[in-house]
Amino acid sequence: MDNFRGARVLITGGLGFIGSNLARRLVELGAQITLVDSLIPLYGGHLQNIADIRSQVTVNVCDVRDRFAMEYLVQNKDYLFNLAGQTSHLDSMTDPQTDLDINASAQLSILEACRRVNRDVRLVFASTRQLYGRPDYLPVDEKHPIRPVDVNGINKFAGEGYHLLYSQVHGIRSSVLRLTNTYGPGMRVKDARQTFLGIWVRQLIEGSPIKVFGDGTQLRDFNYVDDCVDALLRAATDDVAVGRIYNLGSAEVVSLKDLALMMTGLVPGGRFEVVPFPPERKAIDIGDYYSDFSLIQRELGWTPQVDLRNGLIRTIEYFKAHGRHYWEAT
Amino acid sequence: MDNFRGARVLITGGLGFIGSNLARRLVELGAQITLVDSLIPLYGGHLQNIADIRSQVTVNVCDVRDRFAMEYLVQNKDYLFNLAGQTSHLDSMTDPQTDLDINASAQLSILEACRRVNRDVRLVFASTRQLYGRPDYLPVDEKHPIRPVDVNGINKFAGEGYHLLYSQVHGIRSSVLRLTNTYGPGMRVKDARQTFLGIWVRQLIEGSPIKVFGDGTQLRDFNYVDDCVDALLRAATDDVAVGRIYNLGSAEVVSLKDLALMMTGLVPGGRFEVVPFPPERKAIDIGDYYSDFSLIQRELGWTPQVDLRNGLIRTIEYFKAHGRHYWEAT
Repeated sequence: MDNFRGARVLITGGLGFIGSNLARRLVELGAQITLVDSLIPLYGGHLQNIADIRSQVTVNVCDVRDRFAMEYLVQNKDYLFNLAGQTSHLDSMTDPQTDLDINASAQLSILEACRRVNRDVRLVFASTRQLYGRPDYLPVDEKHPIRPVDVNGINKFAGEGYHLLYSQVHGIRSSVLRLTNTYGPGMRVKDARQTFLGIWVRQLIEGSPIKVFGDGTQLRDFNYVDDCVDALLRAATDDVAVGRIYNLGSAEVVSLKDLALMMTGLVPGGRFEVVPFPPERKAIDIGDYYSDFSLIQRELGWTPQVDLRNGLIRTIEYFKAHGRHYWEAT
Repeated sequence: MDNFRGARVLITGGLGFIGSNLARRLVELGAQITLVDSLIPLYGGHLQNIADIRSQVTVNVCDVRDRFAMEYLVQNKDYLFNLAGQTSHLDSMTDPQTDLDINASAQLSILEACRRVNRDVRLVFASTRQLYGRPDYLPVDEKHPIRPVDVNGINKFAGEGYHLLYSQVHGIRSSVLRLTNTYGPGMRVKDARQTFLGIWVRQLIEGSPIKVFGDGTQLRDFNYVDDCVDALLRAATDDVAVGRIYNLGSAEVVSLKDLALMMTGLVPGGRFEVVPFPPERKAIDIGDYYSDFSLIQRELGWTPQVDLRNGLIRTIEYFKAHGRHYWEAT
């Protein structure tokens, strides 16, 4: 991790959930950090996410679709963590063009900018398990067929495709991580646009019942954000990762109902209810999912360190202390 | 094929190579045909392609990126053959954004237009074997991993993904054909932007040597355009094909050198030379490729009818008679 001392690092989506946690870790490691974020109200960016490190980072508010701004910002950077994205599966179905513009088109123009002005940058792109669609088998490894069930999955696959291609053809060293459900301090809690866990945590703290869709038997795996950040840093610094795709995931696989049970046990008065799937969610639901993440274990030595219960405790503590900034924000 | 008598058919890329041959067949079948084409000089559209059926079709010159025009044009159509595309692999690397706009973004907006104004249309999308990249095994079936080696392959995969998704989620009945090398009358012969066979045919007729890249051992399969048209019509009319992806291909697999030998044997004085790969082509070359097309054989009863030698004879005859319109055109 000494690589980052004095290194110039650009993080797109840097005021968002994962970007801000990554920034915090990079401040500790001594990096010079620029955070790019559009602060679009429906997305994940929030200044509260960097309240404690505000004086140690440079904030540049702009959209990754702003080609000229991005071409300026990628110059003279050693690392680029490309985390900005439209993350809502539902929104990708009602406004597919915006999803395409952010998750595919803007990624391509960022890579073109790197090709023109900074071929030596080291890139990591945050992709998603969503592009596998409904799994043929479990756990899902990187060889699983790509069969997205929503526009978001299609566009994220294009976005990662560009990164791998520019690595292979143009020598712009890129790695792709396919994230599973990530949770922790700073996640979006106003709604389920980033992860349903956000709205669950908020409901818990506000004393409303958590809503579990379907029958609650769907299996999922989860990563605490610090583990996700650790994977991003490993991917950025290990030459083995160049041109590679890695699943993140967790050995701790739980049903949504068991997760709700665990979470309601952590907050006095916590309760949940099982409700029918809203039809627009059912249409793009992927059923059971959990990852085979043995490739990144083997090649980069990454293993999640924070178990679900402890991660949830830390997350709930954070939002109990700072929640008012998040509930009230537009 | 009685389905097409009186049917209202829209063909994007309708003045192009495959679109115009499809139109000719649909005229015979009694359809009411509208051809959409941008007539961009570097692409495949050419009025000479429909010279013999000009009075029997409606031509509408516009770009598939023109959302408002497309939303008007898809109304009240029974069939939409979605063939417009940027086909040059090399151009997709030098101008990736244009490739994305045409092959992904415009496809999405066409589907959105169908969702809004014509949910009952029956759609067929022309995709490409390019999205498989360098084959892991031969022949390549539809389960082969998707690993494009150029921007074109990434964007075409997104384009087909939208079609399948809109079929599944929104009930807009779509089928996808993954074409291999298609050749025949009307193909682009000014350069290799559509198929290298175009420039080969032109070189033959003009008396210049055909240029075979590499060592000439690369294997390929080819479909004569009438067989491709037959597959498009079957996919459009068979309910089994809804939401499905099919490879096209041929049992006649030849090396590029053997193809050059066959072609030079068809034209007096024909000759070829083996030359080194230009580096920008080598970077995105896929090595040997031929398709497993047993799925469409089994499900739609499609089998190529025109063998390579006969298809090439017909093609060369066509361009001997009409070539001057194609060489001289901008």
